[in-house]
Amino acid sequence: MIVSVIGLGLIGGSLALGLKQNGFATKIIGVDNNERHTKEALEIGIADEIRSLQEAVELSQVIVIAVPVDAACKLLPAILDRISEDTIVLDMGSTKADICEVVEGHANRSRFVATHPIAGTENTGPRAAFPTLFMSKVGIICDEGDSDQDAVHLAERLYKSLFMKVVYMPSKEHDLHIAYVSHLSHISSFTLGLTVLEVEKDEKTIFNMAGSGFASTVRLAKSSPAMWAPIFDQNAKNISMVLGEYIKNLQIFKELIDNQDQDKMFELMENANDIRRILEGIILNEHNLIKK
Amino acid sequence: MIVSVIGLGLIGGSLALGLKQNGFATKIIGVDNNERHTKEALEIGIADEIRSLQEAVELSQVIVIAVPVDAACKLLPAILDRISEDTIVLDMGSTKADICEVVEGHANRSRFVATHPIAGTENTGPRAAFPTLFMSKVGIICDEGDSDQDAVHLAERLYKSLFMKVVYMPSKEHDLHIAYVSHLSHISSFTLGLTVLEVEKDEKTIFNMAGSGFASTVRLAKSSPAMWAPIFDQNAKNISMVLGEYIKNLQIFKELIDNQDQDKMFELMENANDIRRILEGIILNEHNLIKK
Repeated sequence: MIVSVIGLGLIGGSLALGLKQNGFATKIIGVDNNERHTKEALEIGIADEIRSLQEAVELSQVIVIAVPVDAACKLLPAILDRISEDTIVLDMGSTKADICEVVEGHANRSRFVATHPIAGTENTGPRAAFPTLFMSKVGIICDEGDSDQDAVHLAERLYKSLFMKVVYMPSKEHDLHIAYVSHLSHISSFTLGLTVLEVEKDEKTIFNMAGSGFASTVRLAKSSPAMWAPIFDQNAKNISMVLGEYIKNLQIFKELIDNQDQDKMFELMENANDIRRILEGIILNEHNLIKK
Repeated sequence: MIVSVIGLGLIGGSLALGLKQNGFATKIIGVDNNERHTKEALEIGIADEIRSLQEAVELSQVIVIAVPVDAACKLLPAILDRISEDTIVLDMGSTKADICEVVEGHANRSRFVATHPIAGTENTGPRAAFPTLFMSKVGIICDEGDSDQDAVHLAERLYKSLFMKVVYMPSKEHDLHIAYVSHLSHISSFTLGLTVLEVEKDEKTIFNMAGSGFASTVRLAKSSPAMWAPIFDQNAKNISMVLGEYIKNLQIFKELIDNQDQDKMFELMENANDIRRILEGIILNEHNLIKK
């Protein structure tokens, strides 16, 4: 099967490497308007050939959109305008409601499958890509009723070929939940990084005093602004609500500290400790995927 | 040298294991008022024998206090009341101003060395201890002018025997910087965990949708309330200020999201990306310690 990947960064690049290694794709056509990326993608073997978008659409059975979510919303209608009825398009963006809305009522809507693989690192570009990024991760497919059955089936086959678990979910529900479990973490981390950088002008102090806990909480502050600004924009309503709750909880914590109310602090932290069970659940979830 | 360790949890236990393995301690006397911990400490080999506080103080050349910071402030004066002039006491707490204040003017103040090893994990108790916890980490010694030279020298030798780097700093300065690079990370993580747990009643959703980024930012929410409540209490003034700045920055981020100001969001995140250089600096710092 010929697969075109539009956007040869961490996500698109890793997908391409994985689908080539496992034989799902007989050929990967790469599309990217960043020349350095196309050059690197050829060197690394992410893409077998680089083509224009139009050529890629004509030549492939599967078209994967792996660009920032604002660019994806612009690209998708143009791609659907041109595809044949045997081709499917899927996107891999972190927000799902907007992209589903933008093609609502399009004549070829049913050839599109809205997906979100829950995988990534804080690194970017083709050189950050690796073929096992998606292994034992969850791939979410949204609003599957709006896609042809064969298209959904093929998208599911593609993800399962990478040892992923496929989960179905309405796009609006996806965007709300993902605001809590992913977008909030990123904003918390970006802002933590900023707050410390603002005040600790003497880097030696950070080097000496920051431990593994600091590193762990600010790791996501390394993430790509080009990828995240459009996500925060598209999911603004949900994120604003979730962020408001986070700020409210921080203010409660601050009051307890100001009032030196150790008992109540203790209680809050004990409740937060329950996250241990959740984190073990996540690991178990991945482990079960591997065993199945 | 006979070393007494008071508090046989992650920190005290790891120190004991390290000092026994490297030969610095010929014998470890363990003190802990938690019976399960003393039993486990003997089983694991953290302590050679368990003794009362009074016996431990009489029998050892080095006394290490590794209990929560509120308990440490109560213990230290009582220990200083009884020690001989050849003995030194050091504490390992995450806050330094209060403990230095509590023994200001004590007749044996100069036998005490205030220290803070920048090391730890989110796990607790003797079973979480391991002998290399401190390897290539920084050990901070505060207000060294208030301690006898031989006491400071011995504390430094102890840390260096574990391949640590020793850094000197006034206690008040320590407490301000550590509020930024450690205490804030913990509050951010505790509160993030709470916020998500409050709303995501259906754990399956978290298991399916949470990725490695979420796990990384909430890892510290597993930390021990018994250890952290007294730290937040003792460093309340600094933490409140730092937390206020973090909340202010989150509110700025929220406004940008509400106004869908992608350009300014992009700029903030690009500034936050500078944390990459800092994190590399931390790794390099550790690496240089190993090489030296």
